[in-house]
Amino acid sequence: MKPTHIEHIGIAVESLEEAIPFYEKVLGLQCYAVEEVKDQKVKTAFFKVGETKIELLETTDPEGPIGKFVEKTGGGIHHMAFAVEDVAQALKDAEAAGCRLIDKEPRQGAEGLMIGFLHPKSTCRVLTELCGKK
Amino acid sequence: MKPTHIEHIGIAVESLEEAIPFYEKVLGLQCYAVEEVKDQKVKTAFFKVGETKIELLETTDPEGPIGKFVEKTGGGIHHMAFAVEDVAQALKDAEAAGCRLIDKEPRQGAEGLMIGFLHPKSTCRVLTELCGKK
Repeated sequence: MKPTHIEHIGIAVESLEEAIPFYEKVLGLQCYAVEEVKDQKVKTAFFKVGETKIELLETTDPEGPIGKFVEKTGGGIHHMAFAVEDVAQALKDAEAAGCRLIDKEPRQGAEGLMIGFLHPKSTCRVLTELCGKK
Repeated sequence: MKPTHIEHIGIAVESLEEAIPFYEKVLGLQCYAVEEVKDQKVKTAFFKVGETKIELLETTDPEGPIGKFVEKTGGGIHHMAFAVEDVAQALKDAEAAGCRLIDKEPRQGAEGLMIGFLHPKSTCRVLTELCGKK
């Protein structure tokens, strides 16, 4: 696997309405999209800094994965995503190197990208995503 | 404030010896430096992916900030750092925009950079660092 950069950092927040002003007014970034991802039960807000996106995640359902994470922790960095050329191949490479996977095959993510998650048990407890065009 | 990119992501781990092989063998990144930062009571291992560094942090003292974080959470993403031109000015800008600060003035960080932390109470619970040459 050859990741090219950090594609995004996913941050779970209680409320986009409270969080967006921090990223805009304090850090000086610009929110360029707000999108609901129904199958992940979240509303997302995107910012760009260099080659990396900040993806804020607010749950739309207390029983969704972000809802549970916020209930347990109060919120914070939820996952990081590496950009790779070919997610299917990168998942195979990871498994061959002994890594446990959440997704054996890529699935559709936000912004039209293919995504796949590695399992935190193999990644020193960091939920790690791979993202790419295929 | 105008951050240019994510300078690094700080990840607290129980053991560098266990964590480095995941980043090298599974993700295909290369550890280019291991450094002890005595005043922060950590040993660090650095990797580069695109314009961002991954900074793994292993405590050298259970009472240090990373030791306490790992005890509480088991480890994971500890902070993210934005690159700015002038840390002193960026801290002033953040405070003027209503952000609570941990560091009122920049201090010396790893790799010869100046650093300053914003307070998680103002940052939606994400420990946020600013990093720069001055």
